[in-house]
Order: sequence, then structure tokens, then C-alpha cells
Amino acid sequence: MTVKKTLDKLNQTWTWTCAIALVALLLLPDAALAESVVSQGEFVANNVWMMLCTGLVFIMHLGFAMLESGMTRSKNTVNILFKNTFILTAGVLCYALVGFNLMYPGEWNGVLGFAGFGLEALATADNTAAYADGGYSYYTDFLFQAMFAATAATIVSGAVAERIRLPSFMLFATLFVGLVYPVAGSWKWGGGFLDALGFYDFAGSTLVHSVGGWAALVAVLLLGPRLGKYTKERMMPIPGSSMPLATLGVFLLWLGWFGFNGGSVLSADPALTSYTLVTTTIAAAAGASAAMASSWGLAGKPDLSMSLNGILAGLVGITAGADTVSLSGALLIGLVSGVLVVASVLLFDRIRLDDPVGAIPVHLVCGIWGTLAVGLFSQNPEHRFLTQLLGVVCYGVASAGLAFAILLPLKWTLGLRVSEAEELEGLDLAEHGSHAYDFGAQRAAPAGQP
Amino acid sequence: MTVKKTLDKLNQTWTWTCAIALVALLLLPDAALAESVVSQGEFVANNVWMMLCTGLVFIMHLGFAMLESGMTRSKNTVNILFKNTFILTAGVLCYALVGFNLMYPGEWNGVLGFAGFGLEALATADNTAAYADGGYSYYTDFLFQAMFAATAATIVSGAVAERIRLPSFMLFATLFVGLVYPVAGSWKWGGGFLDALGFYDFAGSTLVHSVGGWAALVAVLLLGPRLGKYTKERMMPIPGSSMPLATLGVFLLWLGWFGFNGGSVLSADPALTSYTLVTTTIAAAAGASAAMASSWGLAGKPDLSMSLNGILAGLVGITAGADTVSLSGALLIGLVSGVLVVASVLLFDRIRLDDPVGAIPVHLVCGIWGTLAVGLFSQNPEHRFLTQLLGVVCYGVASAGLAFAILLPLKWTLGLRVSEAEELEGLDLAEHGSHAYDFGAQRAAPAGQP
Amino acid sequence: MTVKKTLDKLNQTWTWTCAIALVALLLLPDAALAESVVSQGEFVANNVWMMLCTGLVFIMHLGFAMLESGMTRSKNTVNILFKNTFILTAGVLCYALVGFNLMYPGEWNGVLGFAGFGLEALATADNTAAYADGGYSYYTDFLFQAMFAATAATIVSGAVAERIRLPSFMLFATLFVGLVYPVAGSWKWGGGFLDALGFYDFAGSTLVHSVGGWAALVAVLLLGPRLGKYTKERMMPIPGSSMPLATLGVFLLWLGWFGFNGGSVLSADPALTSYTLVTTTIAAAAGASAAMASSWGLAGKPDLSMSLNGILAGLVGITAGADTVSLSGALLIGLVSGVLVVASVLLFDRIRLDDPVGAIPVHLVCGIWGTLAVGLFSQNPEHRFLTQLLGVVCYGVASAGLAFAILLPLKWTLGLRVSEAEELEGLDLAEHGSHAYDFGAQRAAPAGQP
Repeated sequence: MTVKKTLDKLNQTWTWTCAIALVALLLLPDAALAESVVSQGEFVANNVWMMLCTGLVFIMHLGFAMLESGMTRSKNTVNILFKNTFILTAGVLCYALVGFNLMYPGEWNGVLGFAGFGLEALATADNTAAYADGGYSYYTDFLFQAMFAATAATIVSGAVAERIRLPSFMLFATLFVGLVYPVAGSWKWGGGFLDALGFYDFAGSTLVHSVGGWAALVAVLLLGPRLGKYTKERMMPIPGSSMPLATLGVFLLWLGWFGFNGGSVLSADPALTSYTLVTTTIAAAAGASAAMASSWGLAGKPDLSMSLNGILAGLVGITAGADTVSLSGALLIGLVSGVLVVASVLLFDRIRLDDPVGAIPVHLVCGIWGTLAVGLFSQNPEHRFLTQLLGVVCYGVASAGLAFAILLPLKWTLGLRVSEAEELEGLDLAEHGSHAYDFGAQRAAPAGQP
Repeated sequence: MTVKKTLDKLNQTWTWTCAIALVALLLLPDAALAESVVSQGEFVANNVWMMLCTGLVFIMHLGFAMLESGMTRSKNTVNILFKNTFILTAGVLCYALVGFNLMYPGEWNGVLGFAGFGLEALATADNTAAYADGGYSYYTDFLFQAMFAATAATIVSGAVAERIRLPSFMLFATLFVGLVYPVAGSWKWGGGFLDALGFYDFAGSTLVHSVGGWAALVAVLLLGPRLGKYTKERMMPIPGSSMPLATLGVFLLWLGWFGFNGGSVLSADPALTSYTLVTTTIAAAAGASAAMASSWGLAGKPDLSMSLNGILAGLVGITAGADTVSLSGALLIGLVSGVLVVASVLLFDRIRLDDPVGAIPVHLVCGIWGTLAVGLFSQNPEHRFLTQLLGVVCYGVASAGLAFAILLPLKWTLGLRVSEAEELEGLDLAEHGSHAYDFGAQRAAPAGQP
Repeated sequence: MTVKKTLDKLNQTWTWTCAIALVALLLLPDAALAESVVSQGEFVANNVWMMLCTGLVFIMHLGFAMLESGMTRSKNTVNILFKNTFILTAGVLCYALVGFNLMYPGEWNGVLGFAGFGLEALATADNTAAYADGGYSYYTDFLFQAMFAATAATIVSGAVAERIRLPSFMLFATLFVGLVYPVAGSWKWGGGFLDALGFYDFAGSTLVHSVGGWAALVAVLLLGPRLGKYTKERMMPIPGSSMPLATLGVFLLWLGWFGFNGGSVLSADPALTSYTLVTTTIAAAAGASAAMASSWGLAGKPDLSMSLNGILAGLVGITAGADTVSLSGALLIGLVSGVLVVASVLLFDRIRLDDPVGAIPVHLVCGIWGTLAVGLFSQNPEHRFLTQLLGVVCYGVASAGLAFAILLPLKWTLGLRVSEAEELEGLDLAEHGSHAYDFGAQRAAPAGQP
């Protein structure tokens, strides 16, 4: 009987050992993620999504370049493309060297902090461990944020097109991407004082779009309108050089926005990311429809560029609350954005604010609206209208003030505006000694074609 | 001995508790997926793929806009871009409000069903649980399908370009995307009567492309050819305004097709998705090669636009069976599609069917061919030629009939076609009061340049 | 008591059964991956990343087509677009039929091997199992490599633009993609003799870019410069037809490079992929900055096309060591690439090597530099400068030699160059009987606009 018992015991122990070994085997691949709440497979999938979104935000820079080129005159196209190339490339370098560590300074006073200087600070980071609860790796985080950073200055580029001096713009853009955007951004996304107060801005209606929009407004006020845009009596429309390019730009921006908003979930959480893409799409479609209808009603003709700006308006509007407003909230935010962009384009022309691509109506007006709309339509009761308003005001004061503090000395020293002769000749020849298009002699239409 | 036994018992219970706790820990993240067969990591990865494919299908709308703009005259470009912007934005809204719940009605009679109205029906869905065996979330499903929906109307847009009245087209497109496409789609993808009969259409050679193609054919018959396209004696070619735009459009369409077909796997299953991308690519390449060779042989010159249409022909052809035909089947389907598109472009010109971008040869002819080809080349013995033919006929009757039922009353009331003066002036000025391009005065070529 | 014991036994057995069933359930989805080191979720996520990267490399073909069209004259645009369409479609087919099995021949002598012929060899592969340690499926691997293959010939296309005979180019490109590239590639990536010697080329600075670049150099030497490019006294710049197209192309190429380099990790490993994307971005931005600064310094004007080529130069330069150099190494590689591209564009013009898009400076010069830079900046001590130099020389001899061996007989038989009359008229009319653009009569600028 003791033998039997010992055998039983052995048998039992053996079975236990097997069971525990099996369980351990299952746990093994997740050992490195012990501190995290997700499996390795989920971590990899999250990171794939975040890298995809990084690529999509990259596409937005191409979108802006095409939109601005299409909406302005062909004599300034090289200049616009050069500025967009500069902003992206210099912006990424500035953000790597300074910006990222200003924006996410870690332990600090909530207003200004700095985690370290240069590529060394980036290089010492631990990229092998899962970061942010397994949402992405450290370098994915950096690159995603770097792609965001340059967009703020790009917004300004459109508003000041066709008359700003290139070196002045380059200096401004560098300081804006390297210092202003990251410090302002740290107040909310870096865990600063506005975050502590409960201000909410999911993907940057305020932190990116209105920050760029305020700077655009200040720059346009300092620059004045393009020659010939306003006569004593009335506004003279200056048509863009290529509507296919403008359309290409807006569609690419919409595509990029899937990454801008979808990536702001900071993981590939299926429920949150897909919900965010749906609100983003509904708002964009609603913005276009409202802008199409209202401009058609006002002008009596269907207007392509207003419709395109309606898409962008809806996208900027939904950005602050894409994860938290209801579907009908998204629809309403988009519809109001579409009406707002048409109304403010007309208003700004009346008060003689010359903004060639409509950057201020789109990014500033709808950025403010979208941020406030979180206070109205959010399904999270902690989001309050007055806190949202406070955030809007803080960012307005800071962004407009700092833009002014950079641009005014530039106006006094380098000068902000090209000479009248250069503006008439076009910046392409005047500043770059080249031109954007050369189609040779126009061919006659084939015989018999109407 | 009783003490020993009690201790043994306690010890045993403790060990059991540990084991069960470990197992429970492992199961925890998958608790929400209890009914599903995939892990959370796999679910997240599946959903990332499906969101990526949604973005890729979105790109197809940009591709269509660029292709149509490039293939038509510059005096109608704004009109084309406006139509494409409208179809996408209005199409998404219609599909959200009505279409999705018409297409996937759940319990119904297999011919017509409706799961509910408006955004509320979407908003009450459970988006947090894994959906469709963990392939994607509910909202990912909706958005992927919404991006598909608008393509059917876009196909029509190209065929009727340069002469259709804008308001009539807008009404038609809205009804087509909101009602015709989803009801027809429900017969197969919603689990309706054609699905029950064993008809197979993997990603929409018939459900999307030929449905759009039949409507395009009806519209072209009702509209008639563009002024000056056919004289008594012969056909006058009307060259497009920009071949780079057309090429851009076709390459973007090919890219988007990776999502169109790859996403139709409805999960990121590595074997099926990658196989689908390979058949898709082989058919596109084969279509281009065959169209290139046959048009070169017939006309004696290498023809870019035929080659581009050959790519699209191969893509439409493979769409019905991309997951199920063999690799040599894919090659053959593509080659035949490439020949078919060249032959039918020539044929349609002979019978004076004026289709500015070749939408009917590409989407209708190759859509039918691809659907029948499933009956010839499928590796699944359940796919039969006659069932495929039955499906083709059902969709042809329904789509052509319903398109006729929408367009004829429009012809009688609003009118389908612009006036002769407007057509000669161009729709951009006539309907929109604007133009697409403005390159200023052409610069002289630099001295010394040939 | 026996009853009690039996009940205990039963109870215990039941509990065991449950525990084992639970464990089995957990193990089940991973059963197919028993031989692999990753979970099913990780495998799916890896494969999604690799399919995404495949799509991104596909986009590079569009990027090349747009860049080349924009950088050359409008009278040759159809020809360029046709060549790019041909290379991609014929290249994919050649690679499927021959190239893939030449490049990855399995057991062989390390110099030349062949795993099998035609689609059959592809079709018999086991696509259901996880491949390459769960990094991707078999067909994902094939398609990713196929997209790479065609790029090598595309590089040549830009350098020989505006004067090469179409049939000769088509024959050359087919042989180059189908035979030269895969055999040369097998020496390193297929595990051949250079791999055994320790040569390192992460994503193809040498295997793709310099292989294409050497062939471009040989072709340009055999072809001679475009008519009118060099007079007795000096070089006449021939401006491109559309800088927006060129910019579009370069931005698309940068985007595509995220897949080119990011996919060369051959899995979605979060640390490695994200690190690779960061070095890629830093080098591209640094290349643009250095090219911008050095060309501005030399010419006194900010030069858009040099800046764009600077982006490409940085990208080509980082490609060999994107996973292994430090961040400051990436910065330095990019900066040097940017200077090199400007210097070699000037140098090649001085020695009258006419390369319309700067393909040789970008792909050959920076490809060599990037490969050697691995020997200087790699964090892996096994990478040595002399081994890298050996690889550069081997690929130079092979690629230039084989390109010569293909092109010289073509020159003797079909002829490499179009006639003088055809070149002056433009290849579009001469070879294709069509033209790329038709904007109708230029509209007068609206009254009152400057």
C-alpha cells in the first residue's frame, strides 16, 4: 500500500510537472513584456500600426506641398515646393536635436522643461523594451512626433505664400518647429499645466492646427496682402495654377489624417482606432458637403476649392475629439466646420486678410471650433467647455505672441517681404532663378476637334 | 495521520489554485475573445491590416480623380474633380445613413432587407468585441465597406465625363451609392439569394465593377457621344490633357487594389492575403503586357493609355477570383483582360459608344470576364461556370435596369446633358465659372536649347 | 470511505481534465507554428508589416515615373511614362518566371544557381506555414523581392531619358531585371560568396542602387549627351517640364523608402524596424540640408532640384547600413551624401556625362559611399571597410560588365539612339504618335490681376 501511495505520488508529481512546464512554455515568449499588459504579438501589431501612421503623417507634407502649389500662381511654385522641402527636412532635424526633448521633458515644472540635447539624448534611449504599455517602441514614438512637428510650420507656409522672403521664412520656420511648437505642445501632451487642468485635445486641433493658424494670422498681418489682390473697390480673385494638384493635395491630406488621428490613439487598439477613423471620415465628408452646399447657395455655382477646403475644415474640426465625440457629434462638427470655413474665407476677404490657400479659416477657425466642440459633444463627462476655452486662449496668446516675437525682429532686420519687382516677376525667377513649368509650344488641337 | 492528510490536502489545493490562477492569467487578455478563435495579438494585427486596406481603397478615389482628369480635356477638369470629391464625400455619408444597413441586413428574405436607419443604427453597435471571428472591429468593417461603395458610382463618372449635367449626375450618384449598390451587393456579400446559390465574387469584379460598368453603359447610351467625337466618316481621337496625371491615377489605383483585394480576405491571414496580392500583381502585369503588345501590333506604335488601361483590365479581371485561382490562372486572366480591353475600346468606338476614359471596356467587359473566369480557373470545385454566368446576368439586369430607372426620369426632368454651347465652352466655365489650369504666359525656351 | 475516495478520484480527474483542456486550448492556435519562435499573433503582425512594405516599394515605381517626367522635357513625357509602366509590369513577370529562383537558389556554388523555372516553381511552394522564422509568408517574400527587382532597371531609365530607342531599352531592361540583378543579388542576399566573405549591404545601396547606377553609367557613355546639352564652350541647362511632378516623385520615393529599408528587416521587430526608419529619415533630411546649403553656397541661389536630389542621395547613402550605424553616423552619412551629389552633378557636367535626372550621382556615387560608410560607422565590429570595398568592386565589375555586354550588341543591331530628327521632334510624337499635355489655349489672366 505504501508502494502504491508512492507511485501515486510520483505519478501526480509528474503530471504536475508537465502541467507547470506547459504553462511556463506559454508564458515564455511574453517574459520580456512582464511589466507590460500586452503580449508580444499585440506589441508588434501596435508598433506596425504606429509606423504606418508615421508614414501617413509624412504623406501630409506632400499633401500640403501639392495643395499650396495648386492654389497659387505658377510663377511662385518653385518657391513653395522649396519651402515645403525645407520645412520637412529641417523640421525633422530640429525636432531630433531639440524639439522632442523639449516636448516630452519628463519631470519638470509643467511650463518649460528639457530632457537633453542632441542626438545623444535620443541614442541613449532603450529602444528594445516595449514602450508606453506596449503601444510602440521608443523610436516609433519619436518619429511619429517628429512628423507631427513640421506640420505646424507648414500651415504658415500656405498663408504667407507668394510674397514672403525666403531666408526670413526659413529662420521663422526653424525656430517655430524647434522651440515654439514643442514647448507649447508640452503643456498638454508632455503632461504640463494644461493637461493637469483637464484640457483635452486628442490629436491637435489646437496644439497643431490653431498653433500654426495663429502664427499664420500674425504673419499675414505683418506682411499685408499680395499686390493687386485688393483694389479700392473690391477683392480680385487670384486663381490657382492647377486644380488637379490642389485636389491631389487635399486627398493626400485626408489620407494622412487617418494616421494623424488614428495614430494619436498611441496603440492599435481595434475599438479606439477604428472608431477614430470613422469619426474622422464622417467629419471630413460632412465638412465637404456643408461647404459645397453653402458656397453653392451663396455664389450660385458649385465651387471646387471651397469643397476641398470643406474637407480640410471637417478634418481639423474633428481632430480634438475624434476619439470621444459621438457619431452624430462628428457629423455636426463636420457640418459646422464646413459652414465656418466658407463664412470665414468671405469674412477675411472683406477685412482684407490675404491668405492664398485659406489656411487661417481652415486651421485656426476650425481648430478653435473643434477644440470647443469637445466641451459640447464629448461622451466623457470630464471634458468641460470652459476648460477647453481656457486651453484655446492659452495657446492663442502663446502662439500668436511668440510668432510675433520672432517675425517682428525679422521684419526689422532681414525684411519679411520681397520687393515689388520681385513679387511681380514671381519668386521663382527672383529668388531661385528658375521656373516650375515648361510645356514647350502649345500644340494645336487636332483638326476636327471642337 | 489526519493532520498529514489535511496538510496534503491543503498543499494540493494551494498548488491547484496556483495552476488555475496561472491559466486564468493567460486566458484573461483573451476573455473578450472567448467566442473567437484568435488571440488578442492576432485580432489587433488583423484589424491593422483591415484599416490599412481601408486607407488603400480610399486612395482609389484619388486614383480615379487623377485618371479621369488626365484622360479628358482641360476645359472639363474642375468639373471632373468636383464630381469625384462629391461622390466620395456624399457616398460615405449615404452609406453610413442607409447603405451599410441595406447591404448587411442580417435576418431577411435574401432579396431586400434593412437593418436600421441613420447613424443611430451604427452607433448602437458593439465595437469593443472582436467581430467576424476576430478579423476586425465593427467600425473597421463599416469603413472598409463604405470606401468600396463609392467606387461603383465613380466608375460611371469617367464614362459620362465632359457632357453630363452636374445636378443630374449628383442625384444619380447619390441614389446609386445609397440604394442600388448596397441592395445588389446584399445578394452576395450580405448573404442573399445569389450567395445561397453558390455564386462567387471574391472582391467585386461583378458586385462593384460590372455594377458600375452597366450603369456607365446605360448612361452613355442615354447621353450620346461628345460633340465632334464621331464625324460621318470616322472617329476623331480626343486626346487627354495630362498623361502624367493619368499614369499617376492608374498607379494609385493599382496600389489601392492591394487593399481592395487584400482586404477582401477580411482578416490578415498571412497565407490568403499574400496569395491574393500575388495573383493581383501578376494579373495587373499580364494585363498591361497583353494590352501593350496587342495595341502595338494593331496600331504599329506603343500606346501608353492602352497599356495603362491594360493594368486596370487585369486588376478588374482578377478581382472575382484573386483568392482562389492558380498562379497560371491569374496570368491567363490578366492576359485575356489585356486583349479584351484593347478589342472592346476599338469595338465601342466602331459602334459609336463614346467613353472618354474607357470605363466600360475596363470595368464592364473585364468585370464579366473575371467573374466567368472563376468558373474556369478556380481551385475550388464548388465554383461553377453556369452559376457564375447566372450571377453576371442577374447583376446585369438589375444594375442596367435600375440605372435606367433613375436616369430616364432625370433626362425628362432636369435633363442629362449640358447645352451645346456649354459643352463647347467646357463645363468648368459653364457650370463652375472657373478653370483648372493657369500657367501664365509660356516662357521661351532658354537660348541655345533645341 | 471507498465511495469518498472514488469521488475524490473522480473530482481530481475532472479537474485535471479541465486544466489540460485549457492548456491545450491555449496551445492550439500556435500548433502550426510549433517549429517557429514566434506566436501566431506576431507572425500575422510581421506579415502585415511586410505586405505594407511591399506596397511602399511599389510606390517607389510611381515616384520614379513622376520624378523622371518632371525633370525632363514635355516632348518626351509619354515615352518616359511608357518606359516606367513597362519596367514595372514586365519586371514583375520576369522576376516571377526567372529572377526569384535565380536570386534565392538554395543549395548552390555561391556564384550562380537556379531553383526552378516559371510559375510552377512558385506555385509548389508551401505558403501556409510561417516562413523565415515567422517573419512573413512565402508569397509575401516573393512579392517584396519582386518590387525591389524592377527598381534597378528604373534607375537606368532616368539617366538615358530623352534619347534612347524604346525597343532597345525594353530589351535591356528585361534582361537586366530578369538575369543581371538576381544573379548579382544572389551573391549577398541569396547567401552567395560575398555573403560568406562578410560583405554587408542591409537594403541595397550596392545591390540595388549601385548595380543600377553602373548600368546607367555604361549606357550614358554608349549613348552620348542629348543634342544641344553641351556646346563647344559650355553646358546648357535643360530645365525640366514640371517641378511639382518632380517633387511629388521625390516625396513618394522617400515614403517608399520606409518600406525599402523598413521591410529589409524581414520582420516587424519593433526595435529594429523603428530604428531603421529613424536612421533613414535622419539621413534623408541631412542629405537635403547639405545639398541645399552646398548648392546655395556654390550658385548663390536656393536650388530646388539639388535639394530634392539631396533627399534621394541621403536615402541611397543610408540604405546599406540603416540598421547598424549609429544616429550620428546616419546624420554624417546623409550630410556627406548631400555634398557628394552636388559635387558629382557638377563634375559629371564638366566631363560631359549627360544624365537628365542625376541618376548616376544619386544612385552610383551615393550607393558606393553608403556601402563604404558601413565599414566606417557600423556598430557591428564584424563589418570592415576593406570587405565593403571588395563588395563595391565586385558589383561594379559585374554590373558594368554585364550592362556593356547587353548594350553593345544592341547598339550594333537595333541601335541605341533615336535619330536626330526624332530627338528634336521629341520621342512622344516620334515613337508614340502622341503627346503628354494638352491644356488648350491659355486663358488670359483676369483683368486687374498683376
